[in-house]
Amino acid sequence: MTKILGFAAHAPGQKLEPFTYDAGPLAPEEVEIAVEHCGLCHSDLSILNNDWGITQYPVIPGHEAIGRIVAMGEQAKGLQIGQRVGVGWNAGSCMHCHECMSGDHNLCTRATATIIGHYGGFADKVRAHWAWTIPIPETLESSSAGPLLCGGITVFAPLAAYVKPTDHVGVVGIGGLGHLALQFAHAWGCEVTAFSSNPSKAEEMRTLGAHRVLSSRKSGEIRSAARSLDFLLVTVNVPLDWALLLQTLKPKGRMHLVGAVLEPLPIPAFELLSGQKNVSGSPTGGPAMMADMLDFAARHGIQPQVERFPMSRVNEAVAHLAAGKARYRIVLDANFNREHPGSANA
Amino acid sequence: MTKILGFAAHAPGQKLEPFTYDAGPLAPEEVEIAVEHCGLCHSDLSILNNDWGITQYPVIPGHEAIGRIVAMGEQAKGLQIGQRVGVGWNAGSCMHCHECMSGDHNLCTRATATIIGHYGGFADKVRAHWAWTIPIPETLESSSAGPLLCGGITVFAPLAAYVKPTDHVGVVGIGGLGHLALQFAHAWGCEVTAFSSNPSKAEEMRTLGAHRVLSSRKSGEIRSAARSLDFLLVTVNVPLDWALLLQTLKPKGRMHLVGAVLEPLPIPAFELLSGQKNVSGSPTGGPAMMADMLDFAARHGIQPQVERFPMSRVNEAVAHLAAGKARYRIVLDANFNREHPGSANA
Repeated sequence: MTKILGFAAHAPGQKLEPFTYDAGPLAPEEVEIAVEHCGLCHSDLSILNNDWGITQYPVIPGHEAIGRIVAMGEQAKGLQIGQRVGVGWNAGSCMHCHECMSGDHNLCTRATATIIGHYGGFADKVRAHWAWTIPIPETLESSSAGPLLCGGITVFAPLAAYVKPTDHVGVVGIGGLGHLALQFAHAWGCEVTAFSSNPSKAEEMRTLGAHRVLSSRKSGEIRSAARSLDFLLVTVNVPLDWALLLQTLKPKGRMHLVGAVLEPLPIPAFELLSGQKNVSGSPTGGPAMMADMLDFAARHGIQPQVERFPMSRVNEAVAHLAAGKARYRIVLDANFNREHPGSANA
Repeated sequence: MTKILGFAAHAPGQKLEPFTYDAGPLAPEEVEIAVEHCGLCHSDLSILNNDWGITQYPVIPGHEAIGRIVAMGEQAKGLQIGQRVGVGWNAGSCMHCHECMSGDHNLCTRATATIIGHYGGFADKVRAHWAWTIPIPETLESSSAGPLLCGGITVFAPLAAYVKPTDHVGVVGIGGLGHLALQFAHAWGCEVTAFSSNPSKAEEMRTLGAHRVLSSRKSGEIRSAARSLDFLLVTVNVPLDWALLLQTLKPKGRMHLVGAVLEPLPIPAFELLSGQKNVSGSPTGGPAMMADMLDFAARHGIQPQVERFPMSRVNEAVAHLAAGKARYRIVLDANFNREHPGSANA
């Protein structure tokens, strides 16, 4: 039995409060990680607010955890006590379905989401299946690597699946996901266009890797990019002029969504047919892809730009993100008082 | 100068009438073909009625022509006088843009549609660029091969681009395109499901290659195919329950449109994201793909099931197709009276 201390919300809209749970005996394939840092992702807000109707309260958010292994079940493979690892959106999957056996563990219908029916990383410890316990390359900083485990893999996996270095890539929405996408796409060798609602950030976007910055709100600017892109990564979760955005694609181009846009997208069939275009989406990525992503990020010096808060100020961090003020991701530094379970250092 | 006799319509909704035009001197890269048979495709109706707003009257329809080469410009390559060839949706393309140079001549923005601003195959002769003059393999019947040049390539190209023999494939709409898609998908090695609004044709669909026949109009039957398909080819041009059809796809599956559905498709982003699914479309295929398609059709004995009309009864054939009665494609047999230009034999 392990007592784990975290911050939990008990209903939509409620603040996070200190919360202790009994994690029970460690399962044979499970790993227990002492959390050192944990990113705060927009999906944490969606789950806290039950925007998707799938939240299970009490919920301990946090699915971008970085820490060290403190315990391993006897069937845990390929890891060591003391190893620096991370846990992202998923904390487990069935390991034997077609998707798991194909390396697409993130598409397993029985996958465990780290913060749904499972306690997440805003805690002194978090548990995950060994396959979803991802080793962190040495040169990545613990204090900023967390967001790679959800935001990073979410934008990297589509590049790995669909994009060649010769491609011209657009990124719509330069926030938590988009600022990583610019870095990855640039390092991938592509020509990179940023579409942002906030052109005041143009210089910063260029520093992140954009060769061209266009307004995502001005039809004329979007139109100026007509037929110029092989791949358009949409990181926002609000409705846009999808038909117009499809026109930025070259023949055989692809518009790919990673944001959970709630309204159905009215896609004109003619736009797909005439240019043999694709519209698609994807959720995070599997463990092997996550390893590739971290290796690539380490090699290219790609890192999330983060604002840090001590875990004890988690509610302040949540409000900061909810207000759209995060530049670009938030990381919470675990500062639990392990001497006085149930409280956190200020 | 060549006088060419055909059947033309002069305005939307008007009957086709005998029409003679002066084709002028043959261009250096052009080929002139004496038409023996020409398919009647649903796109001919759309162009006759100006459904897409791009018709140029007078219009001579017909873009599934089979015949023999009677004249060649001096720069025409790889063909011979007397050779049996076909002309499909396109009669030319620029030959030097990125798409043409990549073998995707069908995506060339300057491609000539055989029946738009160019006179089509309901005539004693038709002209085409040499690259779009497609040799017909010996074992294919002239009288039934025509529909392969538009209907055939339209459903074959997506299989060639996206489908593996291990895939499970669905075909929505078993008409002119769908009855060819069933044959191609079966010969491709796939497990094949036909979705039809007319279950009375179930036995015939099985003969054409379907392993499973489901109603395209009953939600329960569509739902029974949930998560079973890698690829869903939609050949209809009317709105369907797209969100429900997307649920028939396995993770990483693709719904591909080849019908010009006029209403935008309301695609739920969650359905794309959660299963990493694709929605796409395509128009016909390039000359190399058409050669592969014809070779494959010849090897596997794939042929359009056609109803034949003499060219002189073209208006009757148009009415038959417009009434939805064609089983499954219509071919017109050229019976122009070459002794009495301007009239056709009854």
